[in-house]
Amino acid sequence: MGTEHILSIGGVSCRELAETYGTPLMIYDQAEIERKLTSFRKHFVSDKLQTEVAYASKAFTCKALLQLVKAAGCSLDVVSGGELHCARGAGFPMEKVFFHGNNKTPAELSMILENGVGTVVLDNEMEAALLVEMAAEKQKEIDVLLRINPGVEAHTHQYIITANPDSKFGIYIGERQRIVDLLKLVQSSKFVHFKGFHAHIGSQIFDSQAFLSEIRTLAEFSKSIETELDLPVPFISLGGGFGAYYTEEDQPIPVEEICSLLVKACEEEAEKNALSLQKIIIEPGRSIVAEAGSTLYTVGFCKSNANKNYVFVDGGMADNIRPALYQAKYRCDVVTKADAPKTLTATVAGKCCESGDILIENASLPAVEPGDLLLMYTTGAYGYSMASNYNRLPRPAVVFAKDGQAKLVIRRETFEDLEHLEL
Amino acid sequence: MGTEHILSIGGVSCRELAETYGTPLMIYDQAEIERKLTSFRKHFVSDKLQTEVAYASKAFTCKALLQLVKAAGCSLDVVSGGELHCARGAGFPMEKVFFHGNNKTPAELSMILENGVGTVVLDNEMEAALLVEMAAEKQKEIDVLLRINPGVEAHTHQYIITANPDSKFGIYIGERQRIVDLLKLVQSSKFVHFKGFHAHIGSQIFDSQAFLSEIRTLAEFSKSIETELDLPVPFISLGGGFGAYYTEEDQPIPVEEICSLLVKACEEEAEKNALSLQKIIIEPGRSIVAEAGSTLYTVGFCKSNANKNYVFVDGGMADNIRPALYQAKYRCDVVTKADAPKTLTATVAGKCCESGDILIENASLPAVEPGDLLLMYTTGAYGYSMASNYNRLPRPAVVFAKDGQAKLVIRRETFEDLEHLEL
Repeated sequence: MGTEHILSIGGVSCRELAETYGTPLMIYDQAEIERKLTSFRKHFVSDKLQTEVAYASKAFTCKALLQLVKAAGCSLDVVSGGELHCARGAGFPMEKVFFHGNNKTPAELSMILENGVGTVVLDNEMEAALLVEMAAEKQKEIDVLLRINPGVEAHTHQYIITANPDSKFGIYIGERQRIVDLLKLVQSSKFVHFKGFHAHIGSQIFDSQAFLSEIRTLAEFSKSIETELDLPVPFISLGGGFGAYYTEEDQPIPVEEICSLLVKACEEEAEKNALSLQKIIIEPGRSIVAEAGSTLYTVGFCKSNANKNYVFVDGGMADNIRPALYQAKYRCDVVTKADAPKTLTATVAGKCCESGDILIENASLPAVEPGDLLLMYTTGAYGYSMASNYNRLPRPAVVFAKDGQAKLVIRRETFEDLEHLEL
Repeated sequence: MGTEHILSIGGVSCRELAETYGTPLMIYDQAEIERKLTSFRKHFVSDKLQTEVAYASKAFTCKALLQLVKAAGCSLDVVSGGELHCARGAGFPMEKVFFHGNNKTPAELSMILENGVGTVVLDNEMEAALLVEMAAEKQKEIDVLLRINPGVEAHTHQYIITANPDSKFGIYIGERQRIVDLLKLVQSSKFVHFKGFHAHIGSQIFDSQAFLSEIRTLAEFSKSIETELDLPVPFISLGGGFGAYYTEEDQPIPVEEICSLLVKACEEEAEKNALSLQKIIIEPGRSIVAEAGSTLYTVGFCKSNANKNYVFVDGGMADNIRPALYQAKYRCDVVTKADAPKTLTATVAGKCCESGDILIENASLPAVEPGDLLLMYTTGAYGYSMASNYNRLPRPAVVFAKDGQAKLVIRRETFEDLEHLEL
């Protein structure tokens, strides 16, 4: 993160981007996304098992992004009809799509079957029954994974071995009979093909022990199911949750390291338990796009209230809800004063009429002035995808920058756009 | 809240609304909004002072809603260019608009001056200086209030007399010299006319003492400013924050009661301090639209994980972020089983792929089934206005129901709409 990075992204100066596209502006370093996708693909490989890397599109999606995912040979994890529609529009191969969600609607299940989606990740008994029924009705075949809750939960630096058995997702492995009954129902279908188990143990995970514990649990559970039901479990999906670097507090495990660690553990567990395991799947989302994305704001008014310095910017919780929703921490720099000494400790706040609209507390900044450009890092995941029009703020434009060229992939919303659904 | 209310809104059955418009659906009881607007207008009156009720449009706005605000003779509080654009589109009289915000952009200040907005609520010194400069340049006159922080803060059932002096909004009255300097700057302008002070002490306030304390503080502060600067303070805006009824925990002060209490206190303080006070202003937002709005969902899958019952609906944190963001509590009923005994305690959860997407914990429900319609009450404020497309969920349609007729005021977003900003 040298001066070069501060002043430009993908070889395009942030000043120039602000002049051309205005602010607030989401800027993705396209090469960084490509590097991350390629790195997962390159390192999540095994001599003994097939491997698949599915990008979790809920972190950020649009057709331009999906072109990169497709080009890197990755698969795709979608969670709704809207995400599937986007994938179709991007020409994403449907057989490489995993469709997740705790409450897929009948319309979504129909879309899944009609479009030849590769894999549905089943959440619960009712869904299994409905899918079996609909697949038979439509005479469409579909592969399924079953989401189970392995009782392993990890967040950031710690993991808790006894996770919430009452999470809303999947079925807890402790409720074995429910899983067995569900699988028997699926076994009875000519159209729905059980392929294995899926689990997801958290987000922003920096502790590899949590993943190893997940793998061990999934492997042992798979073995016991294979034995009891005489049902092969060829696939295991480990979900996502790989951490990204937001601030110095975060120490993500390098892609190369976590991938080889996961692969090795899967190979060992497969061998130890004599599993029929053929393929392992991971679903990185945040770790692909978070660090590649930054938000460029224009500084507006600055003031000091009771010795607390405020630097206001022209966006806020409408384009990035994470600080308010998760108390997420971020770093930033002032593009227009990149070489100035950082003499100011300030709170970077948004323009929404709400006390909670604070983006960064205690940011180290140079002496900023209105009109300066402030670049907030690591906003590429769950920023634009969670953006609202709160306070009737139009959503920012999104550009991909690479090799000195910027490409507008999502245009800035206008005031007219905000009213186009009104009658 | 009898069975009638459960089954129909504005005389239109919820079943029929679901069939016609689909779910999730935002339904406003139009007469209820009109009653609330009229009630504030009717009761916030004084023999001695002028009064103005400005609807805080950030709670929920669209042209159809603004027609009701206009028809009731209310003024309008907007916080952005987007909200002002909407007000213009609705033909709202610009002189009755108050423009708030801690970080109005130069483009917004320009819009304000060009459109003849009645009043700007200034937040800070830099804004005052910029407005003075721009007004002179454009030769446009504008009235201003100054937002001050009275050191009174109230939330729900309690108020704290020593509020945050370092909030991002306005200037703390303890920093008197800053306020004096700002007012002197405004006094020097031929175009910017100081009209008084604005304060806002919190939201969901059920404690009238907090408002009385605010009034006392504003009155005494106004007096001291009038004396020191020989500058009349004709207007005082008390802001909003009037509570709404979400659950049994909430006991909003009836509109009639809070209005007469505020008016009386202002009259008394004006007399006691011999103020030049001419007009008092309030800015209800939530209390106008929250209770009038409900969200109708279709129940999808239900399951029981570790003895915790889940009822999944076809919306969630994308259309209502308040439970996740503020741990807000709501009530609901099952429209299609309104007369059935409530035998089930369940968690109503949304369909977003996120553990935090829980709408209501421990809801008392009848034995629900997929396809049932679940009506969540009091979602009219900060629901649609904060809605996102997270998980690429289209935003719900919005209908106004009255006298047995439903009117679609915002159509449902489509998958195509979600992609219309993409290039």
